[in-house]
Amino acid sequence: MRSTATIGTSAILLALTYLGFVSAQTFQRLGTCPSLGCVFPPDQTEFLAGQLFDIRLEVHAPVNGSEASSGGVPDENFTFCIQSGKGGCQDVTKYFQVQDSSIEKWSFSYYEDLFAKDAGTPIVVNVASKAYRALSLSKPGAYTAKLVYNGGFQTVANWVVREPATRRKAKNVLFFIGDGMTQPMITAARLIAHKSINGKYQSLMQMDQMEALGHQMTHSIDSFITDSANSATALYTGKKSTVNTLNVWADSSANSLDDPKVETIAELFRRHIGGALGIVSTAYIADATPAALCAHTRDRGQYVTVVTEYLTSAEAVNSTFAWPTSCKQPDVIFGGGAEQFFPGRGSPNGTDYYQAFRDKGYNVVLSNTELQATSSKAKTLGIFSVGNLAKWIDRNVLKENLKGQRNSPTGDGTDALDQPGLKEMTLKAIDILQARTKRNEGWFMMSEAASIDKMMHALDYDRALGELLELDDTIRASIAHLKKIGELDNTLIVVTADHGHGFDVFGGADTKYLSAQTTDRKKRAAVGTYGESGLSGYTVTEGALPTNNTIVFGAEGPNFPVTWNPRYAYAAGFGANPDRRENYKLHTTGPRLPAVSSPDGYVANPNDNPDGFNAPGTLGPDEGQGVHSLQDVSVFASGPGSEAFRGVYNSIDIFFKIADALALGRTSR
Amino acid sequence: MRSTATIGTSAILLALTYLGFVSAQTFQRLGTCPSLGCVFPPDQTEFLAGQLFDIRLEVHAPVNGSEASSGGVPDENFTFCIQSGKGGCQDVTKYFQVQDSSIEKWSFSYYEDLFAKDAGTPIVVNVASKAYRALSLSKPGAYTAKLVYNGGFQTVANWVVREPATRRKAKNVLFFIGDGMTQPMITAARLIAHKSINGKYQSLMQMDQMEALGHQMTHSIDSFITDSANSATALYTGKKSTVNTLNVWADSSANSLDDPKVETIAELFRRHIGGALGIVSTAYIADATPAALCAHTRDRGQYVTVVTEYLTSAEAVNSTFAWPTSCKQPDVIFGGGAEQFFPGRGSPNGTDYYQAFRDKGYNVVLSNTELQATSSKAKTLGIFSVGNLAKWIDRNVLKENLKGQRNSPTGDGTDALDQPGLKEMTLKAIDILQARTKRNEGWFMMSEAASIDKMMHALDYDRALGELLELDDTIRASIAHLKKIGELDNTLIVVTADHGHGFDVFGGADTKYLSAQTTDRKKRAAVGTYGESGLSGYTVTEGALPTNNTIVFGAEGPNFPVTWNPRYAYAAGFGANPDRRENYKLHTTGPRLPAVSSPDGYVANPNDNPDGFNAPGTLGPDEGQGVHSLQDVSVFASGPGSEAFRGVYNSIDIFFKIADALALGRTSR
Repeated sequence: MRSTATIGTSAILLALTYLGFVSAQTFQRLGTCPSLGCVFPPDQTEFLAGQLFDIRLEVHAPVNGSEASSGGVPDENFTFCIQSGKGGCQDVTKYFQVQDSSIEKWSFSYYEDLFAKDAGTPIVVNVASKAYRALSLSKPGAYTAKLVYNGGFQTVANWVVREPATRRKAKNVLFFIGDGMTQPMITAARLIAHKSINGKYQSLMQMDQMEALGHQMTHSIDSFITDSANSATALYTGKKSTVNTLNVWADSSANSLDDPKVETIAELFRRHIGGALGIVSTAYIADATPAALCAHTRDRGQYVTVVTEYLTSAEAVNSTFAWPTSCKQPDVIFGGGAEQFFPGRGSPNGTDYYQAFRDKGYNVVLSNTELQATSSKAKTLGIFSVGNLAKWIDRNVLKENLKGQRNSPTGDGTDALDQPGLKEMTLKAIDILQARTKRNEGWFMMSEAASIDKMMHALDYDRALGELLELDDTIRASIAHLKKIGELDNTLIVVTADHGHGFDVFGGADTKYLSAQTTDRKKRAAVGTYGESGLSGYTVTEGALPTNNTIVFGAEGPNFPVTWNPRYAYAAGFGANPDRRENYKLHTTGPRLPAVSSPDGYVANPNDNPDGFNAPGTLGPDEGQGVHSLQDVSVFASGPGSEAFRGVYNSIDIFFKIADALALGRTSR
Repeated sequence: MRSTATIGTSAILLALTYLGFVSAQTFQRLGTCPSLGCVFPPDQTEFLAGQLFDIRLEVHAPVNGSEASSGGVPDENFTFCIQSGKGGCQDVTKYFQVQDSSIEKWSFSYYEDLFAKDAGTPIVVNVASKAYRALSLSKPGAYTAKLVYNGGFQTVANWVVREPATRRKAKNVLFFIGDGMTQPMITAARLIAHKSINGKYQSLMQMDQMEALGHQMTHSIDSFITDSANSATALYTGKKSTVNTLNVWADSSANSLDDPKVETIAELFRRHIGGALGIVSTAYIADATPAALCAHTRDRGQYVTVVTEYLTSAEAVNSTFAWPTSCKQPDVIFGGGAEQFFPGRGSPNGTDYYQAFRDKGYNVVLSNTELQATSSKAKTLGIFSVGNLAKWIDRNVLKENLKGQRNSPTGDGTDALDQPGLKEMTLKAIDILQARTKRNEGWFMMSEAASIDKMMHALDYDRALGELLELDDTIRASIAHLKKIGELDNTLIVVTADHGHGFDVFGGADTKYLSAQTTDRKKRAAVGTYGESGLSGYTVTEGALPTNNTIVFGAEGPNFPVTWNPRYAYAAGFGANPDRRENYKLHTTGPRLPAVSSPDGYVANPNDNPDGFNAPGTLGPDEGQGVHSLQDVSVFASGPGSEAFRGVYNSIDIFFKIADALALGRTSR
């Protein structure tokens, strides 16, 4: 809902373009700046001692609307000072011993509300700004930062540098993210993959058995629903931010690379400890959750910037904005997204970016076979398909669906038939990180089950639960592998999500009966609730009635369903969804497409579940997928430092807990 | 889906009536009995050492269908033996030193599936049975119970008596149940009642601050969705059971009082310790969650039985079935449900049941004023309205809604205008229980926020969150009060739910814009997702745009919303719902009625949210409300013994953890 245009010294509005949001509620001028003077880092920011960050100051002069002021000319003579302890407030240049920076100016516009948008009457805001780059605070305690503008108006930001841990508890950190994974999904996955007799589970999810259980709050800095970029920023930097941002606070300028940056856990680990770093995801590797370990941009969609930052640094991406730290070429990068690597429209400057990685000493592998065969001694880039990797169900149960995708990571238009799963990637990554740990510096790995989220967006909950079960299986296998190589007791394992999707199982559906009915309302009567929900049809052989003595153990191997498409299926619903058709069956021919566009916006896809009933949604006509939700997500942890992950806390605390386990804070008093 | 009829010695079917379930999935012959020989307690049962239970054995002979056998004549010569350790299998009469019991016989019928139901072709089953009453096992370890029938067929039940705690940790137990409360609801309640600045909450829910966090699985013994009777049975007895049961395993007989019973935490506490007992609920006091502390019946709808068991005992209710323990007249009974007490159709034999309580030494109070004024020294019955008590929002914000209800607990048809809330009842209950603790025996109280569930059933999520916030406020006030009277360190406080409702917040709605649009799809576009969800409109003054500097502190008192009906409201959805109309506004004239019956089943109530959009549901036409869901629910605990509540476990484990904190196990070796 925001458009920005960098302008020269003139306060005249030069250009305004509007992003294409059709549905919207609160249109804020700038979420973290409720007054006309903006300070980034904003009020309430907490830092790890020594963590690098940029300062951005803005003074807004709205040209029109209820906040119109100063004739639309922003004050350029603002001052900014910082106070710690009982001393006075020192000018920013003196406090940090830096040169003053020059004034930048631009304009942006926004709509006050949906009525204004319908009427086409935007508010225009002119801005004067300064930025100070790559600073840090290393004395624990409280700080007050004060912007004075417009002849005496003040914006005060209270900052805190937390007292860091001084003793390192964990040599290694294995950080699993189940993207979009909620407790209702974990409960549903347990139902379909684990055998229960008379209400007693005979086996449990690995997550159920971790040493510590916590909850974290996922909301954004300026809205209560987050996206994955924003939430990953919170997990990796300890800073709440805005939807679509990667490790920056969103300013109002048009340039998405000039927003004030903050240092990530990966950068801190590289800078202070120099240990091995691994990034593993079942998404395209420039997607938000992996990207957020290394990239800094207002716009998560800048995939070329992201892969460039993997290989080089933020400073190299745009030399205007000094940023002296980086991920320094992660030892392991495994995922999809080959379109950013083979020469073409998606790769940096159209170059062969596989070759660029080889030139920097990387082994490059493009299939599971190559992955398993490659040496563990070298830095390794593994890219296994165009776009997101195949889903567990399609790789293991419905293998025909891998064909005809023309998604080979070579870019030659053949099919990527030999893809690893999260488990194969993660176990190999452990071996490489371990081999590249020369002394006792240890390693840090983020491993993401990305398609829990992606399949929930598609309302394809069977596939989403397959991905969730693969994550659980990966955790189980990783624990066994770490134990085998003698590193389990040295490794903090943390499992969490970045946000939720409204989803819950509410009954059992007789899919045969549903399919046989001719009216929507009669089809809906195929669902049994309460006592008639019945038992899990997924733990019995195909065609069997689910009862307490038809349970089968281990046909697909333990910890996965025996039957994926039973007559008696679970019936689940969503917090919000586009119009759809529903029959509660597995989508056997590939991921679901619930809605298709029409002149009237998205409508139910008539080819999705044609034997189902029509189920109109609640989302606006511009939304063809499910959306993220508010609920707290679970945190599971084991190993040294895991006790800190118990209880209820904010998403940003995950960063501080991991940083403390690794003793990454650097103080001076 | 089951009908039962007790019959004489004949195997001929005498009468079959069908319960009115229209939608259903799995129709099991008898959930806990997948073979033709049934053992109660069933396989996988775990006992507290010394806990009383009944044994029920059944042999089934289906007359028709795929299981038809023995010409429909059930084997009456079955045998049943019990083996512990390495000894042989001893006949039940010898093992327990009891007389053999006589054969009972009956028939029941069920439908194999929905096709059979549509065709009107039930399966008829004839049954031969025996029961043995009020037994116990006091040696920890594994047991094998074996039923042999039909000339050699076996049903084996594995039982375990858990090793109990020997040291008592807690003097008092305060057990809070938020009926139907899930983590997504807790997250939503935090959003509307607590102030967040730039993503940092300035205050937290009391639940967020408890010492221990856990998750519990709520599924039934024979279906994956539970009701509140069944789940309360799990929490209070450590035994999974069937929908609608209170502290029995569901057998197949018609008599709902002859099902095999099991002893509750309240009965154990009374029998072994003799401490004070309190039952508090915002529901009618014969409702499942309070009733399950003391009652034993297959049918939670037997309200007269329930209130009779409060005052007398299970044995007195039906002297045929020996049950030698009871709640022995709880010291505190506070709630609604006056229709079971004033003389009339709902009271036991039409008598004045208030007087019956007075005759047993109870003080009886019928308003908050009387409650606060009454002595803390006597047993006290407090009944404050017909049906469920008023909701927090109506008692505190929309007080006009209390009028015209004609729900006075006196039964005189006037309004119950002077009702206490959960906090007032719970704090007074603490005082009474404390005053009635003569020595060091301590007390046990269950306090239920019942209408979280009831309002979620009605899709009235604003009222549900009001009830949830009242629960949180009650916990906070209880902790403060216990501290004041010096009992906090002696008291284990446990907070949990009995099941979920699919519910989650997915965005923010501009209700003014929604109301102003003329088409359903345009109304749906009033919802903003992700960054356009905005900030909480509930923490700013009426009419203010929610931003980080319009936040107001404490207008309604801390920990409740400042504004309940803001222009920018949260938008929430359900896992499943009946057809409804939606506008995301507070229902200002009283609890919501989302659907009304029609010749075609339930349809959206045209008078509910007339300015909203039409939102068809997914539930069958017979369902006019929201339904329960699968998700694990949270457990929060503080005080002595609370560390045991960390992690992920089954609902039945709550019983064992509380029993261990009170050292209620009684072993003999």
